[in-house]
This record gives sequence, structure tokens and C-alpha cells, in this order.
Amino acid sequence: MVTDLLPAKNGEEYTMQFLLEVVDILTNYVRKTFDRSTKVLDFHHPHQLLEGMEGFSLELCDQPESLEQILVDCRDTLKYGVRTGHPRFFNQLSSGLDIIGLAGEWLTSTANTNMFTYEIAPVFVLMEQLTLKKMREIIGWPNGEGDGIFSPGGAISNMYSVMVARYKHYPEVKIKGMTAAPRLVLFTSEHSHYSIKKASAVLGFGTENLILLRTDERGRVIPADLENKVIDAKQKGFVPVFVNATAGSTVYGAFDPINEIADICEKYSMWLHVDGAWGGGLLMSRKHRHKLNGIERANSVTWNPHKMMGVPLQCSAILVREKGLLQGCNSMCAGYLFQPDKQYDVTYDTGDKAIQCGRHVDIFKFWLMWKSKGTIGFEKHIDRCLELSEYLYHKIKNREGYEMVFEGKPQHTNVCFWYIPPSLRLLPDGEEKRQRLHRRVPLYQVTLCF
Amino acid sequence: MVTDLLPAKNGEEYTMQFLLEVVDILTNYVRKTFDRSTKVLDFHHPHQLLEGMEGFSLELCDQPESLEQILVDCRDTLKYGVRTGHPRFFNQLSSGLDIIGLAGEWLTSTANTNMFTYEIAPVFVLMEQLTLKKMREIIGWPNGEGDGIFSPGGAISNMYSVMVARYKHYPEVKIKGMTAAPRLVLFTSEHSHYSIKKASAVLGFGTENLILLRTDERGRVIPADLENKVIDAKQKGFVPVFVNATAGSTVYGAFDPINEIADICEKYSMWLHVDGAWGGGLLMSRKHRHKLNGIERANSVTWNPHKMMGVPLQCSAILVREKGLLQGCNSMCAGYLFQPDKQYDVTYDTGDKAIQCGRHVDIFKFWLMWKSKGTIGFEKHIDRCLELSEYLYHKIKNREGYEMVFEGKPQHTNVCFWYIPPSLRLLPDGEEKRQRLHRRVPLYQVTLCF
Repeated sequence: MVTDLLPAKNGEEYTMQFLLEVVDILTNYVRKTFDRSTKVLDFHHPHQLLEGMEGFSLELCDQPESLEQILVDCRDTLKYGVRTGHPRFFNQLSSGLDIIGLAGEWLTSTANTNMFTYEIAPVFVLMEQLTLKKMREIIGWPNGEGDGIFSPGGAISNMYSVMVARYKHYPEVKIKGMTAAPRLVLFTSEHSHYSIKKASAVLGFGTENLILLRTDERGRVIPADLENKVIDAKQKGFVPVFVNATAGSTVYGAFDPINEIADICEKYSMWLHVDGAWGGGLLMSRKHRHKLNGIERANSVTWNPHKMMGVPLQCSAILVREKGLLQGCNSMCAGYLFQPDKQYDVTYDTGDKAIQCGRHVDIFKFWLMWKSKGTIGFEKHIDRCLELSEYLYHKIKNREGYEMVFEGKPQHTNVCFWYIPPSLRLLPDGEEKRQRLHRRVPLYQVTLCF
Repeated sequence: MVTDLLPAKNGEEYTMQFLLEVVDILTNYVRKTFDRSTKVLDFHHPHQLLEGMEGFSLELCDQPESLEQILVDCRDTLKYGVRTGHPRFFNQLSSGLDIIGLAGEWLTSTANTNMFTYEIAPVFVLMEQLTLKKMREIIGWPNGEGDGIFSPGGAISNMYSVMVARYKHYPEVKIKGMTAAPRLVLFTSEHSHYSIKKASAVLGFGTENLILLRTDERGRVIPADLENKVIDAKQKGFVPVFVNATAGSTVYGAFDPINEIADICEKYSMWLHVDGAWGGGLLMSRKHRHKLNGIERANSVTWNPHKMMGVPLQCSAILVREKGLLQGCNSMCAGYLFQPDKQYDVTYDTGDKAIQCGRHVDIFKFWLMWKSKGTIGFEKHIDRCLELSEYLYHKIKNREGYEMVFEGKPQHTNVCFWYIPPSLRLLPDGEEKRQRLHRRVPLYQVTLCF
């Protein structure tokens, strides 16, 4: 048993013993997580945890703790946390714990390196390059050409798309700022993820220059509304520059009609981005990928393997059809870091493409899972998830006290329904019922994803 | 031995066996990493690794690999990578492998959760809150008040600072875009990190509106130059809004004089950001923290525990003195995710402060290291690193064929020197020698950090 007061010293045997004791805690945790009879969460309010639960103190002190206590801290941290890998854990966009992915993360942490140059992460940089190419092939870009990078989540990936679109249309903004461009407007669905709005604020477009598009009863963009709003914006003297089509919206799981949107983008020379953070995974399925038909016409795509594909958090890719734009947009030529006269082919260095400097290795777990499942393994996983959502849909559809939010089978794994409280069940359909139900929305509208 | 063709299935015993075999690979790797007689890197060119080294194929296939092969892939990935924890690995800004930090990362991966709300990460959200408060206390803000968030690296943290400054001075930019503001200018040292320049491009200021400040022979900003340039900008009708002071520059390890810069910021109502990504760690040392005197006057601070403090990558904090600005700047009120009517105190939810949606758990490894070392342990670590750099300085100073880049003891762990090739040693000091040396800079200028 480890009892030394000091932190583990490098290279000594009890260092390894300590690590193995942590592994013991972690494997026990994983075992229990997979056991349906355990709790998903033993909930406590913030003030309870802050006050210290049975000796578990979050406070940081001047003096070191014993390694014994560190092990207790590890156990307690897991004890009061959420078992996201539990079979009964349902989150909007992720669940489950893939063991190969987990092993990949452990290896990544152990390698503890950085994606910015080939010299510091030769294997990971190449894995990223090959995997991005594979993803572009699956999107349908000729020979998988183009560019891309893994970023810290879908919101940042979406932000990249707006940045790159701006650089393509108004490269002078990089040097002169937004005032060098005319008034630019962006378009996205009223059901799209809020990160598009965030990007418009962050990048200096302003949220009022993001125009929201109307959707049909299933939450899909109405292309005619896009065209009307583009024409309207142009008449006002604004310049439409960017359209986001969502492939798998957050709440409804809706797929915008990409081909029809692409026609309009081509007609008016606008950048087409597909936010497939959530729905991108369906590209792996021959049965379901038709829902993203037209994605090969996009200029950029966000695709988060950490959602539908079950890769541990974080793993999000931004893919760009035209090569050189990411680099042109983000390059600052910091000579002291990205020296052009290294002893190897520096085109493999990725630092100048990113808005980050150091960049976490997000690729390995995904690459390892792909090796382990094969492309067909991901396909099976996706098909299975969609079968399950159809199963749930049929279970709920005719159940007393439940109402589907929209008619017809789910397009994605989002199954949206209302639970109608008994007091409302006898009310006739209509405005009053709708309003009273809406007042209870946060309690009774549930979106389940597997 | 694991031989099943399928990926490990949840809950079955061979899943655990597989994980333990990975752990065996990892602990062997760590043992060898700490052994000075091993290589830091077995270098191969990109084309060599891409062609497949002794059967190590990076290609992704349709069919699954056996778990046996997955274990081989793990071994090969480590074999051709860089041992960043090796005693002889010297990188600009990080080195070593802290075992407690590593254990923290393994636990983080196993918990596989997300920082956006309290309900999905109760323990980690509180740890982040307490740790950020502690960091603000150490900076010297009264009662540790203020705000902050962990972000995916120093470049993003610095970007936050510019965003928040813009929001403070021109909140309307969030809605109306950069054209709603006058021509805003930013200031930073010519020696500062390129992320400030990147932020000015990304956020729509334009890189030409970032004004570079001259530095003295040690690479520190000359305050008079800042004031002159502020006056000059105002005369041109521009609005000076943001100044970055670097605490520990990337190459020289220089500390800008924060107090003198703060005087000028107060005089002209500019936001003062301190980029302490690299030098922030010195705040933990009673002996060295005076180099950051005045930091308590900053409006925001970047501080990366993953650099000087040895925390595994990634771990970077942006700290903001005024509460509410991060939220005001970044909030998009996405009702479906950040419901205000949850059953707990939702002020603990952090999602609306971030430019990300999902956010990786970067806090736990840092918190665990702090528990294990105590504040005094970090202090010892910092003091020891600076002692070592002074030792190296004395070793090199009078050595034949070497010249220090600047006079006097290093301020940080950067020890900057030239190696003078024999052919240049007899040349008298002067322009010719300097020029011929400069042509060889990438070969002979070395910055060592511990």
C-alpha cells in the first residue's frame, strides 16, 4: 500500500504501484457503471458538496496530502459524479463508454504531447491527416481532397467554418478587420445550434446579422424562405455570405434539405456549411446517409465523432473542401515555433491552420476505435441506434398520456414526445391545451438519444 | 490473452483484461521514459511512417482488427512517438510527466463527461470554481472575487481576454458587429505570443489594428513607447481599448513591467490583460512572484498550469476581475440546454460563459496535483526550475564558443545563448559577425526551459 507523504517521484517503483491502484479504482468504477442495478448519479446540491461530504473536501491547501488520501479523493470524485457510461444514462448527445476509446484516451494522456508540429507528435499528426482524408472521402469530396483539423468541440468547428467563409470572400478582413467588408449576413435555421449565433458574435459579425430561417413541421429549413431572405438582404444592401445547413438538429434531429440549399448557395455565391456535429455520423451508414444527400456540395462540414459515433469527449472535426484556406485564414507565421527550415517536410505541421497554439491530441482514441470496429463497425453502431429510436417511437406513439411532437418516424435518434399530465388529458386539442402544456415544457418535453 | 475479434463488449471480463493489458503497455512505457538510457525519439520521416514501419499501418479499413492487433497498434504508436516525459526532452514550454497528473487524466477519461452544466459534472464544476477562486486569490484580487474558465489552451484564453475587453467597452458589438464600434486598436509587445495577433484577426479587429510595442534589450515592453503609441493612435482618431502585457515571453522569458503599463491603462481607460500563460506559474513562488508585480491591477489574466506547473496538456485558465462579463459576452441563452428552472442552483452552470458548447474536463488533473503537492509543492517546483536555469546560465556564460543573447541572469527558465561556430569565433564583434550568425539562427539559437 502506498503511504509516502510525497507526490510520486519519477521512475521509482511505488510510482507504478500508485498508478496501478488508481487503475484498480477505475476498473472497479467501469465494472459498476455497466451494472444496471447501480445508480446513474447520487445527486447532491452544490452547497452539500461544497460543505464536504463525509470528509470529501474540495478545498485546496498549502500542505501536501498523502498518496493514501489522493486515492480516496479519486474514489470520492467518481462517487459523487455522473456515470455517463451507465446503460440508463440518457443525454442529448452522448452516452455509453467505449472501452477501446477509453484505452485510447489513457494512451493519449500518457504520451502527453501536442498536435502543433510533426516533430512533437509524428504519429498523431499522421493519424489525424489520414483520418480527416477518410472523412472527406466519406463526405464525397473527390479523392478525399481538401483540408481539416480536429478542434475542441462542435462550437469551435462551426466557428472555423464562418471564419474560413469570411476569409474566402473577404481575405482583407484578416488584416483590416470587419470594417473593411460590407455588411455581411449569415443564415441558419431557427432550430440550429446556438454556436452559429455565438460565432457571429465572437467574430464581429454581430448576432443581428445572423438571419434565422423558418422551418417546416419537422424542424427542417424551408429553402424558399432562405431564398426570400437572401433577396431581401441584398435589396437592403447587405451581402449574404454564409449559410449553415444543419444535419441533425439538437432537439428534433432534423436534417435540412442540403441539395436545395446548395442550389441557392451556388446561385448567390454563398458559402455552404453543413453542421453535422450531431448527424454526421449517419454518413457511416449506407442505409441512412441519404439524409445528408448533397453534403458533397458543402464548402465545409462539422462532424463530431464524440456524439453519434461514441468516441470519448472531445473529438470534433472541421472539414474544408478547398485546400489552403484554413492555413491562409489562420497563419501568423510565428517563426520561432513553426520554422520553415526543419529537417523534415513541414507541410505536416498543423499549428498555423489552427486558432489554437497548443492543441490536445483528440485523434488517437478515434483512430483506435476505427481500427477496432472497422468502417462497418461504425455502420452497425449507427444502424442499431436508429433501429432503437424507431422502436421507442412505436412504443410511445399510441401510449396513453403521451403525444408525439411531430408525426412520422424519427429521422435521427431524437424521439420527441410530450407527456400529458392527467389534468390536461381531457382538454380538447387547441390553443389552450398547447399553452398549458408549453408552460410545463421543461418538465414534460423529453428528447431521448442513444 | 485477449484474442476476440470483436471490440470489447461492455461489462464482460475480457473487457477489463484488455484494459489491463493496455495499462501494462502504458506502465512499461512510463518506466522506460524515465530511464535516461532510452531514446527520446526514434525519428522517422512522414513518408516512412506512412509507408508502414514493420507492419505498423496507419490506414483505416472497412473490417475490424483483432484486439491483439489493437494492442500492437498501441505499442507501435508509443514506439514511434516522442517521449515528452523523458529527462532529456527539452521543449519550449513543457516537459516531464507528472504521475499524479497522469492518474488524474486517466480518471477524467473514465468519467467521460462535459463541463457545461452542474448536473452533468457536479464535482468537476465545483473543483473548477474553487480552483479558479484560488488562482484569483493568488493573483491578488480581493477575496479572490471575479470570474474565469478553463479553455483549450493559452491562445483561446488570450482570445477570451480580447473578447471580454471589447464587450466591456462596446457591448453593442455582440449584436451589431464590429462596424458598430469606432476603429479599435490593441497593443502588445513585439515579443509577445502570436495568439494576440491571431485574436485580432479572428475577432474582426484586423491584424493592422494590433500595434506592436518596442522592447528593451531583455525583451520587456518600454512603457513610454506604449504611451506614445496610444497618444498617436488617438490623434489619428482610433480608440485604444486593450493592452496585453506578457509575463514570461516565449523566447526570452521576459516580464513586461506590469505596474507601469497599468498606470497607462488607467490613464487612458484601456483594458489590461496579462498573458501569464508561461510566467503565471511564478505566482506560486514567494521568491519569484515579484516579477509579476502589478498583476492584481490587470482586468484579465491568462495562466496555463500545463506549462511551468507541469500539469499534463491541456490546462489553461482565463481569469477575469469583473464578474458577469464572461457571461454577458458569451451568453446566447440556449433554452434547451441551459434551462433556468432546474432543480438546483443554475448559477453553477458554466456553458453560457464559454465560446464552446461541450467542454473537456481539464480541471481534475490540476486539482489532484494541487491536493498532492499542496501550494508549497508548486512553490518548490517553481523555485527548483529557476535554480536550474541559473545553474545553466553560469555553466554557459564563460564557455568557449558560446555567447549569451543578453546580459544578466535569466528572469525565467529561458536561457538564451548563441553557439558560435568555429569559423566565426575570430571575427570581431560587430555587424558582420551578427549578420553571419543570424543567418544560422535556427541552428544555433537555443532556448532551454525545464
